[in-house]
Amino acid sequence: MAYVLINKVTAKPGKRQEVVDILLAAGAAFDDDDACLLYLVSTDNEDPDLIWVQDVWTDQASHEAAMATEEMSTQVQRSLPLLAGMPAQTEVQPVGGKGPGS
Amino acid sequence: MAYVLINKVTAKPGKRQEVVDILLAAGAAFDDDDACLLYLVSTDNEDPDLIWVQDVWTDQASHEAAMATEEMSTQVQRSLPLLAGMPAQTEVQPVGGKGPGS
Repeated sequence: MAYVLINKVTAKPGKRQEVVDILLAAGAAFDDDDACLLYLVSTDNEDPDLIWVQDVWTDQASHEAAMATEEMSTQVQRSLPLLAGMPAQTEVQPVGGKGPGS
Repeated sequence: MAYVLINKVTAKPGKRQEVVDILLAAGAAFDDDDACLLYLVSTDNEDPDLIWVQDVWTDQASHEAAMATEEMSTQVQRSLPLLAGMPAQTEVQPVGGKGPGS
């Protein structure tokens, strides 16, 4: 069963674009990782500080391995001072539908 | 640019599976709709009443057309008495990443 995360990331005021840039740079590593089915970075239409990251992976172990690299750790460290707090990560259990992870 | 929605649906206690069944039955109509890139229905791992629906469509007009059918209206009417309130719909602007909508 796929591993699905919905991440809500709140940037400090005026820092959203910088955080988006880091998230996209970090996610470039997933392009060649077949276990990553979706890594969708979006900005909230209402809240100017909010970013949503939707992850769909084939399995949790593959996601953890991808997050455990030194490059990823570097990117996470770069982003932390730009955030208003720790990202809120919602782990969900996919049950059906259409597309990756369903 | 893709049209992306993150929907948080709260069922009345004990009614989550019924709501999931309706959401999956409603979504079956999207299987043959090329404008629907992702329709992922998931249950929350922490909250026993919560359901998440992640939508990625090629464009907003296609999503609205898909929601405007009589069949969809019937399914929505079936689900409403089972919900604790109106679904919270977050409209976001995709800015990059990997997979459908990025």
